[in-house]
Amino acid sequence: MFYIIGVGLGDVKDITVRGLEIVRSAKRVYLESYTSILPENKLQLENFYERQLIEADRELVEQGADEILDKANEDNVVLLVVGDPFSATTHADILLRARDLNIDTKVIHNASIMNAIGCCGLQLYHFGETVSIPFWTDIWKPSSFLKKINQNKSNGLHTLCLLDIQVKEPTWESITKKKKEYQPSRFMEVKQACSQLLQIIDSNEFDGENYVTRESLCVGAARIGWPDQKIVAGTLAEMVNVDMGSPLHSIVIVGTLHPLEEQFLKQFYIESK
Amino acid sequence: MFYIIGVGLGDVKDITVRGLEIVRSAKRVYLESYTSILPENKLQLENFYERQLIEADRELVEQGADEILDKANEDNVVLLVVGDPFSATTHADILLRARDLNIDTKVIHNASIMNAIGCCGLQLYHFGETVSIPFWTDIWKPSSFLKKINQNKSNGLHTLCLLDIQVKEPTWESITKKKKEYQPSRFMEVKQACSQLLQIIDSNEFDGENYVTRESLCVGAARIGWPDQKIVAGTLAEMVNVDMGSPLHSIVIVGTLHPLEEQFLKQFYIESK
Repeated sequence: MFYIIGVGLGDVKDITVRGLEIVRSAKRVYLESYTSILPENKLQLENFYERQLIEADRELVEQGADEILDKANEDNVVLLVVGDPFSATTHADILLRARDLNIDTKVIHNASIMNAIGCCGLQLYHFGETVSIPFWTDIWKPSSFLKKINQNKSNGLHTLCLLDIQVKEPTWESITKKKKEYQPSRFMEVKQACSQLLQIIDSNEFDGENYVTRESLCVGAARIGWPDQKIVAGTLAEMVNVDMGSPLHSIVIVGTLHPLEEQFLKQFYIESK
Repeated sequence: MFYIIGVGLGDVKDITVRGLEIVRSAKRVYLESYTSILPENKLQLENFYERQLIEADRELVEQGADEILDKANEDNVVLLVVGDPFSATTHADILLRARDLNIDTKVIHNASIMNAIGCCGLQLYHFGETVSIPFWTDIWKPSSFLKKINQNKSNGLHTLCLLDIQVKEPTWESITKKKKEYQPSRFMEVKQACSQLLQIIDSNEFDGENYVTRESLCVGAARIGWPDQKIVAGTLAEMVNVDMGSPLHSIVIVGTLHPLEEQFLKQFYIESK
């Protein structure tokens, strides 16, 4: 059997009881190491699970699926994924590959930022489409995500913005070489994302009508589910100056607030800090 | 400390390791019993947790918060919630009440249908606003959810439809009496929701432009996260005749399919059954 098991968000003990039992009894356990920050705590996970974990980087998961799935019709093989297994496209890929090989598969769900973001007090069913905000480069400054935020906001909906993560990205120079060299890991911060958003708004170079202004209410969320989780609410212009601490960060661009949402969110307003 | 702990979706062992430790060491443990079906398995949960659970119905959670929170600044008190703690409004209420009483609070997240629905192969970030489809009565047949589904579909987005649950609803006759009598529990099925949707479409009595037709692709999802989870994809007209088995059910009205989504969803098509 091939299992994909979500390990949750922050604590080594966030794996479910069922997930832990499977991990402990499996033949091989891989830890997906490129869509989150948890793998930096691999040793902690290994100690708690009482298992050695094999690091699975993007190359292995995307191109080496058959290696991971080797003998999975005889033995139990596990791929651990931070959050819930279905937050990243690649895991659908490897499940399809397993089915092609007639290997039974099972998924053990867990919390992901897509539902845990509810802890800021905004109701999950008042969220529209989720967007991703990528790191800009000198020559590549996409702004299409603003269009989706505007679409949501015009319908009164909140937008969860997932901020870019670059882990084990090969350097440009090594991309065609056999021996890859990797850039240092980078995790976009709330203030950086807000700064990019402000630049797009100030430039007036975007498609369609704009509902997001410097005064729009945003919620910065850092390390959700971790012991030192931090939530701060303020205007876009204010959030540019807020240091949310270590990664991972995300932002919500708030749509129309309902009374209970407003009441709950109040405790996180910058003024009340 | 007052804890709200998500117990996940289907299996008693879906609680996280951290959640279980807290449950076992707490003074009182309440089990929220009105937004899901798991409480029917209360005994199973009690056996596995090795704890007695106090059933917390809607009245207790919404009007008896102070009873639940009694002495929670000295002892650990837990409220167990099926799925993730932030899927229902009432839990924001009780957290706010705890803060008013200067009681520390902590939330232990878990999977909820809002993220676990990804298991049908549709990407979570291609979903728009989630809607709820309520049971119709003879004189109350709301159709406003179709407007939101249309809004999503016109933007190429999928819509998760949560289907009505009626647990411990007082009978109309007993509503003003001291001793309440309760209606039998009801859980809306996929085929019932599809039938209501078809009736709205056929009646042509709805606001705005309509993108949902009898031929629109839908995904029925039953008992997600349970050992006997079932997923079936078909047109709205086909799904009216599909028996998805025991509750809980939900539906996704599919927006624009991306190639990998289509490839994954194929395995669930009615034709391939």
